[in-house]
Amino acid sequence: MEPLGIALLGCGTVGSGVARLLLTENERLSKRAGRPLRLRWVLVRDPSKPRGVALPSDIITTDFRTVLRDPQVMVVIELIGGLEPARHFILQSLEAGKDVITANKAVLAHYGDDIFETARRYGRTVAFEASVGGGIPIIAALAEELAANQILSIQAILNGTSNFILTQMQEEGVSYEAALAEAQRRGYAEADPTLDVSGADAAHKLAILSRLAFGPGPSVQEIFCRGIDQLQLADLRFAQELGYTIKLLAEAWLQDGQVALHVEPTLIHRLAPLAQVRGVYNAILVRGDVVGQTLYAGRGAGQMPTTSAILADLIDLAIGRAQLTFRTLRLWENHNRLPLRPPERIRSRFYLRITVEDRPGVIGEVATILGKHQVSISSVIQHEALDECEGEAVPVVIMTHTTNLSAFRLAVAQIDRLSCVAAPSIYYPVAD
Amino acid sequence: MEPLGIALLGCGTVGSGVARLLLTENERLSKRAGRPLRLRWVLVRDPSKPRGVALPSDIITTDFRTVLRDPQVMVVIELIGGLEPARHFILQSLEAGKDVITANKAVLAHYGDDIFETARRYGRTVAFEASVGGGIPIIAALAEELAANQILSIQAILNGTSNFILTQMQEEGVSYEAALAEAQRRGYAEADPTLDVSGADAAHKLAILSRLAFGPGPSVQEIFCRGIDQLQLADLRFAQELGYTIKLLAEAWLQDGQVALHVEPTLIHRLAPLAQVRGVYNAILVRGDVVGQTLYAGRGAGQMPTTSAILADLIDLAIGRAQLTFRTLRLWENHNRLPLRPPERIRSRFYLRITVEDRPGVIGEVATILGKHQVSISSVIQHEALDECEGEAVPVVIMTHTTNLSAFRLAVAQIDRLSCVAAPSIYYPVAD
Repeated sequence: MEPLGIALLGCGTVGSGVARLLLTENERLSKRAGRPLRLRWVLVRDPSKPRGVALPSDIITTDFRTVLRDPQVMVVIELIGGLEPARHFILQSLEAGKDVITANKAVLAHYGDDIFETARRYGRTVAFEASVGGGIPIIAALAEELAANQILSIQAILNGTSNFILTQMQEEGVSYEAALAEAQRRGYAEADPTLDVSGADAAHKLAILSRLAFGPGPSVQEIFCRGIDQLQLADLRFAQELGYTIKLLAEAWLQDGQVALHVEPTLIHRLAPLAQVRGVYNAILVRGDVVGQTLYAGRGAGQMPTTSAILADLIDLAIGRAQLTFRTLRLWENHNRLPLRPPERIRSRFYLRITVEDRPGVIGEVATILGKHQVSISSVIQHEALDECEGEAVPVVIMTHTTNLSAFRLAVAQIDRLSCVAAPSIYYPVAD
Repeated sequence: MEPLGIALLGCGTVGSGVARLLLTENERLSKRAGRPLRLRWVLVRDPSKPRGVALPSDIITTDFRTVLRDPQVMVVIELIGGLEPARHFILQSLEAGKDVITANKAVLAHYGDDIFETARRYGRTVAFEASVGGGIPIIAALAEELAANQILSIQAILNGTSNFILTQMQEEGVSYEAALAEAQRRGYAEADPTLDVSGADAAHKLAILSRLAFGPGPSVQEIFCRGIDQLQLADLRFAQELGYTIKLLAEAWLQDGQVALHVEPTLIHRLAPLAQVRGVYNAILVRGDVVGQTLYAGRGAGQMPTTSAILADLIDLAIGRAQLTFRTLRLWENHNRLPLRPPERIRSRFYLRITVEDRPGVIGEVATILGKHQVSISSVIQHEALDECEGEAVPVVIMTHTTNLSAFRLAVAQIDRLSCVAAPSIYYPVAD
């Protein structure tokens, strides 16, 4: 059978993993694909840079046009990352009649509509299993295996770097800064960790999962997003005292024809499956109306897990399955866009830490404001302070019952204006 | 587009779930399938029996030949269970040119070779996502999404009934008998629970997973299988004291070109992901050479989870994906049968509970025998007994280091012949 010609755009960590397996495990992979797989080009910026794979020099190029003009290249694997030139290369590859595999969540979250429309216009397929959850087959689960379901909700830990930092803080009792430094030392966090710790990376991935689960909906910019970079060890400890852990949770759910989405540090009960996810692992809990809850977990990033997902897409394309999925499920088509569920219609429990002067009547003032906004209190922690500290600032931790998000925010704003409140209050949602 | 004609064989719990969704959610399912889905026949033994679904009377039949002769039936969904007449109906359906979907792990574990060969001979497809793990898409994971990997091992909780009983024993502190009664009261266990609690059901499922992961290998009869029906609460408590829980674990792994398989109550460290799986949930941990570990979890049985898997197969067949998978991956083909790894080449840690007379020198005698068989001791629990009880039978619990299975069994047999040993020793493997 005719070989499937492949071009790799980018040869960093993941790219060199993919190239190495295509070269060293070619027989196994070709057998699974039902046809020979041939790596024809690897596009790099600097051919002299040392890489984790020995590439034959005649397949290295620095010119994207070489890839574009080679009629034997049928599949382009985009591993450059970021928005440009990735978007441009993907669109041009599709226009040139090539199928595309990408691990690029940012470009899909921002330009998915354009990319998928171009693919359809040119009768091509875009496969993107590697864009979310590394080696966890969550895209296939949503697009294929749960096809009988109306997906109701997704709760996920989608950023391994953040989860590693949170695990370190929780288990080693170190500060955010110390945990981040450890993540950088181990190569789990970039020198500039912003994309990971700000929640932006998780929001990109959530946008993709939400699109698959619910169809067109809010844009990635509309996702309410807070990272872990402001999280204090004190809140992890109070959460633990209450029987919870804190995870950077990405959630999306469908309610009354609206989609609610957020990425935030969130309290999760210590016995819930997602509370058990440690270190750089990712996990996705999907609720469907037929299947109930299913959970998928594994390493959410890294060279080999991501390589596994990309090669699965490649085999799917070689077999012809990815094309059928893409065509029949009409992925990412731009019909019936569902609106964002507004904050005044979102209900949740909350963890609230207030820093107040330790003097009589303070709890009463706070509780009165919460009551006025219909926020009812489920439990309070205020540790005994020494008599001589009376008048100093102390933390009061309140867990609320399920309440309205807008009302809760108004109440917190009002509490923060009280003269007895010494610092802005901190709050996080509590997962169901 | 031409409707896809469907016949359902059996209309029990799962059958009535599938029928109900095909009737009430027909529009959603047909849209996902890319063509109308039409339920043409439901084969039942007793048409007068009340069911959880209102079936139009003109699609009910008691005669399998009606299904077989209807040229518009393209897919037969076998939900009768058991070996016969299920096997016969599956083979006849394939010979009549119909594709088959089955949830029947027993018939696949015993007659898979025959069924799959017949399917290939007649150019048909057999889809069986529902046969293992209920709504958890583990068949697709092994057959498609981990296709780039050589699977190295599978560790799984595959029987929800047993896991529910173990969870009850562990968390409520009740006996096996009481936990079984509770499972029966809730409808999680049959009046005759043998298939579940003996480990046979888990062994059937393990045989299927092993076949997918490793290709042809040992037959289901060769799987070493012990159930939970002899498990005593005392062992759960000692395990807990040591930091472990006991699960009915189904394991298969590849080593030196041999396949090792067993289904047994197994000690799992309390922090391991599988230790967290509670109640009727199932979970499967798959290790691949590229992806590392991935975990899949969900309800492993029950009407709607199983229905979700069957309808996913149906949509896959309607789209044409299942056919491509079946053809290209050459599932269940009878090439290069791998041998069973013999006990003398299996290494594991063990939990061993000995019942001995409480008199001086006993531990020494036991330790000497273990030492002679190269079984080294990692820890011992012997609780302080009252002075006046000296001479009575007491339990001694030993955790071994990694050791050879055959040598360990010989040592235990020899220990049980000691005069100071008051009852047959109990042992379980400890998971890695």
